[in-house]
Amino acid sequence: MDSQRLDPTATVADLGEFGLIEAITRVTAEQAPGEDVLVGPGDDAAVLRVRRGHVVVSTDLMVEGRHFRRDWSEAEDVGHRAAAQNLADIAAMGGRAQWLTVGLAVPADLPASWVLDFARGFSAECGAVGAGLVGGDLSRADQITIAVTVMGACTVSPVLRSGARPGDVLALCGRQGWAAGGLAVLGRGFRSPRVLVEAHRRPQPPYAAGPQAAEAGASAMVDVSDGLLAEAGHLARASGVSIDIDTAALEVPEPLAAGAAATGADPLQLVLTGGDDHALLATFPADVALPEGWRRIGSVTAAGGEPGVLVDGTTPEGATGWSHF
Amino acid sequence: MDSQRLDPTATVADLGEFGLIEAITRVTAEQAPGEDVLVGPGDDAAVLRVRRGHVVVSTDLMVEGRHFRRDWSEAEDVGHRAAAQNLADIAAMGGRAQWLTVGLAVPADLPASWVLDFARGFSAECGAVGAGLVGGDLSRADQITIAVTVMGACTVSPVLRSGARPGDVLALCGRQGWAAGGLAVLGRGFRSPRVLVEAHRRPQPPYAAGPQAAEAGASAMVDVSDGLLAEAGHLARASGVSIDIDTAALEVPEPLAAGAAATGADPLQLVLTGGDDHALLATFPADVALPEGWRRIGSVTAAGGEPGVLVDGTTPEGATGWSHF
Repeated sequence: MDSQRLDPTATVADLGEFGLIEAITRVTAEQAPGEDVLVGPGDDAAVLRVRRGHVVVSTDLMVEGRHFRRDWSEAEDVGHRAAAQNLADIAAMGGRAQWLTVGLAVPADLPASWVLDFARGFSAECGAVGAGLVGGDLSRADQITIAVTVMGACTVSPVLRSGARPGDVLALCGRQGWAAGGLAVLGRGFRSPRVLVEAHRRPQPPYAAGPQAAEAGASAMVDVSDGLLAEAGHLARASGVSIDIDTAALEVPEPLAAGAAATGADPLQLVLTGGDDHALLATFPADVALPEGWRRIGSVTAAGGEPGVLVDGTTPEGATGWSHF
Repeated sequence: MDSQRLDPTATVADLGEFGLIEAITRVTAEQAPGEDVLVGPGDDAAVLRVRRGHVVVSTDLMVEGRHFRRDWSEAEDVGHRAAAQNLADIAAMGGRAQWLTVGLAVPADLPASWVLDFARGFSAECGAVGAGLVGGDLSRADQITIAVTVMGACTVSPVLRSGARPGDVLALCGRQGWAAGGLAVLGRGFRSPRVLVEAHRRPQPPYAAGPQAAEAGASAMVDVSDGLLAEAGHLARASGVSIDIDTAALEVPEPLAAGAAATGADPLQLVLTGGDDHALLATFPADVALPEGWRRIGSVTAAGGEPGVLVDGTTPEGATGWSHF
């Protein structure tokens, strides 16, 4: 059974745990299972062949009402986004994602079609990078909660947060501020600029740019989950340096300017503090030619006092990003 | 700061996301970090050295009100249990657990000490088998939801659910029915037999028995999460056989008899359908000497009709275990 053929009034409770797992398995089987899966879903654990002597692992949560709203995003969007934010973590290490697990806690009265559409979006996003779903768990809860773990590997040394050195160039790859712009637009009851709303619903992390940066010699890297200033601050503190963002080098593309104008937001503030685009932010030694898609947005200097982030040479005021509490 | 020195009135919101992560990190650092951790918590992802060419992975959810109650279990108990149910999944493949990640979604007004005590119990349970916490995520939610992923490896071929063959012996290792007995007791407002209540709060899966069974030549194995009949049914259907449980071979230990008497439950029913002890259930070829701690409780025969489970030669009536919806 897939969600097209499913009784649209059927709830999660109607299908039951095992019926739902069977239906999810049919949906996810539409994608290739991912490479090197020796034992896939359905046993106590999956068994995965590791060819490079290591595995890179990350885990992330998404909670309804906190990270997404069902009236602002379709289930398929939420699936894409849940996968994307995890896949981006592996890219930010310079790695390629291979396998994912999902824990899904949902209300008993949730339409079963929501779960199957979520699974469809999730596995489509994974399939686009050649990764596959290898296991999961289902439970009942009052609020939809999605827990994803992703595993992958690097072809060169993993790029950590702690490797930025004075003299390095700070560079960005991917859209930044768009998802926050989309959220601002939705918060005002608008549905356009459409491209911003879509950026909130389905971020487009530049997955391939992570390994490309690693191979080019990036010294430090992070994906921008919590905002540009916040993530640059993570790099700066982990590396014990100052990172100076040059706002003249930051793009404010037309849709972002339009969305900011419609919502009364400052477009530059969206670029500096907006989260959830999962752009990649990295530092490169000054003599490295930036790989395609990367643009210079600042520089790394010795920390004068506390390591941290500067904007045009000045300590930024106010909130620098997103905190979960 | 640890929970002993923490202001007991401080909430999760008081500490904030990053303060809480720092406090958790101090608590979990009391345990050894686990072996072969190349990059631990704090970067976009952990990097783990894989020595055996494969990784065994499983994931499980625990939801407050569904899997535990804060008035029935201390936070440290919940931590032990969240780790134990995942560690048992690796044991059930014949493997040894090495690394775990935790996604923890909690209400903003939850005492921060609850989270730190949870982390203490979780990492103590992991540390007891030499496994370590390598990453996690925190979020706000209305209901405590715990998502654990565990990774490990096998020294011999993983033992799947599908390998049981007619003529094999069915064997059990570990306590079975105790956790369900504890839950029944707590549901009646009692706190004794203490050993049953403790079995609910902190299951004691026989971790080492999993690899021992694999090395001895077990043909199929599963951990008993959902009840003995339910898990035997999983083995039977995955293997295409009948599994006949011999009730005369099932132990009804004294505390279980006492707990059943106090709550009006049938002790044999607790043994047959109780979940959450995470005993190991396996099949062995008839010529294999059962490793220490394993006891014969039934046999495997060719499926006459549909593969499934029998009790003393008869199809069991009524509920055979636990479903999440």
